Amino acid sequence: MNELQFVLPEEIEKQSFEIISEELKERNILLKKDQEMVIKRVIHTSADFEYADTMAFSEDAVNKAKELIRNGAHIVTDTNMALAGINKKILGGFGGEAHCFMAWERTAKLAKESNTTRAAVSMELAGEIGKPLIFAVGNAPTALVRLYEMIEAKVLIPEFIIGVPVGFVNVVAAKELIMRTKVPYIVNRGRKGGSNVAAAICNAILYELGR
Amino acid sequence: MNELQFVLPEEIEKQSFEIISEELKERNILLKKDQEMVIKRVIHTSADFEYADTMAFSEDAVNKAKELIRNGAHIVTDTNMALAGINKKILGGFGGEAHCFMAWERTAKLAKESNTTRAAVSMELAGEIGKPLIFAVGNAPTALVRLYEMIEAKVLIPEFIIGVPVGFVNVVAAKELIMRTKVPYIVNRGRKGGSNVAAAICNAILYELGR
Repeated sequence: MNELQFVLPEEIEKQSFEIISEELKERNILLKKDQEMVIKRVIHTSADFEYADTMAFSEDAVNKAKELIRNGAHIVTDTNMALAGINKKILGGFGGEAHCFMAWERTAKLAKESNTTRAAVSMELAGEIGKPLIFAVGNAPTALVRLYEMIEAKVLIPEFIIGVPVGFVNVVAAKELIMRTKVPYIVNRGRKGGSNVAAAICNAILYELGR
Repeated sequence: MNELQFVLPEEIEKQSFEIISEELKERNILLKKDQEMVIKRVIHTSADFEYADTMAFSEDAVNKAKELIRNGAHIVTDTNMALAGINKKILGGFGGEAHCFMAWERTAKLAKESNTTRAAVSMELAGEIGKPLIFAVGNAPTALVRLYEMIEAKVLIPEFIIGVPVGFVNVVAAKELIMRTKVPYIVNRGRKGGSNVAAAICNAILYELGR
C-alpha cells in the first residue's frame, strides 16, 4: 500500500501485525505457535521476512525465557541501544533489571589490559550481578565467544542466551558456538541481527507476560 | 567465512568494511564517492545489501549534512534507541546536541489531546530548540508526515531530514512525501530502516567529521 492512509495511533501496530501474518501466509511460512510472536516482532522491527527462515530456538525456548522473567531474571545486553529499547517497566514488574556495561570506564580499562573487546569484558562483569541472567547480544560476536568460553570453563552458566549479533567477522561462527551449548537460546543464524533485533526479542517475550 | 578467526578488536570494523566493499564489487554495485561511507555503514549495521539499492540522497546531501553539523546543528530523533546510538561526543565537539522527546510526559499528554502519535508531537516540540535541526526518523512514519505538514505550512523548515522509519503502515508513502519537499534528505525507500539505521547514518557523517 503506497498511498497514505489515516490510521489511528493505537491501530498502527495491530494493522502492521496483520500485514505480517498475511504475507507470511502468502509465502507459505507456518510458524510454531510459541515462536510466532517473537519472529513476528522481529519482522515488525526490521521489515525483513528473512528472519522467518533463519531464527533458531532451542527446545521450548520461549516458555523458558518467560518463566525466567517471571521469576525475576535480569537481562544483560552488549549495547546501549538494546538497553534503551528493552521494556524495563514490564521487566521491573517481575523484579528484573536490564544492564549494559559497555560504557563503563572499568569495562574499557579491563578490555585494554587484556587486549579484548569491551563486549567480552561486559559478559564477565555480568557475573557480579548475582541473579539469574538472560544475555541479549545484539552487536558483538566476541560477547558470544566469551560466553561460550565461560560456559565451557563453568565460570558462568547463563540461564538463557539471545544471540543476535550482526556483522561480517566471526558472527556466523559465534552463533553456531552458542547453539552447541546446553544453554537455552534464541539465535538468528547468519549475519543478520542487531541491537534492534535483540530488543525486539526481549520485548516480544515481555509483552506476552505483560498482558 | 564460517570458521572462528582471531581478530584484534581494533581490526574487526576495518575487516568488516573490507568484506562489504568486496561484496559490493561482486554485485557490481558502484557507490557514489560522497554517499559511500553512509551506505556502507548502514550495511555494516544491518548486514543487508538491499540498502545499496534503496537508499536515496538529495543533491549533495552528505556534504550538506556535514556542513550543518560543523556549524553546530542539533539532531532530533523519534526513538530513544537511535538517541543511545548516535555518537554524542563528536556531535558535542561541534556544539551540537541530540534530542528525543518520546519519553517526555508532555509529549504523551499532547499526543493524547490531539489523537496523534507521540512521534508526531515530538517533531512539533523540536521547534522549541531554536537551533538548526537535522531530523533523524528511524521509527514512526507519522513523524515524517508531521514534518511534511509543518514544511508545507511553513511552521518549521528542518535543515535536513534522515527519513528511515521501518514498517508496514504508511512507511513507504511517508518517505516519498519527504522526497517531494525542498529539504535536503537521506531516505531509505521502501519498508526497511529503523533506529539502528538512523543512528548509523548519523554516525557515518559524524565519524567522517571526527577524523
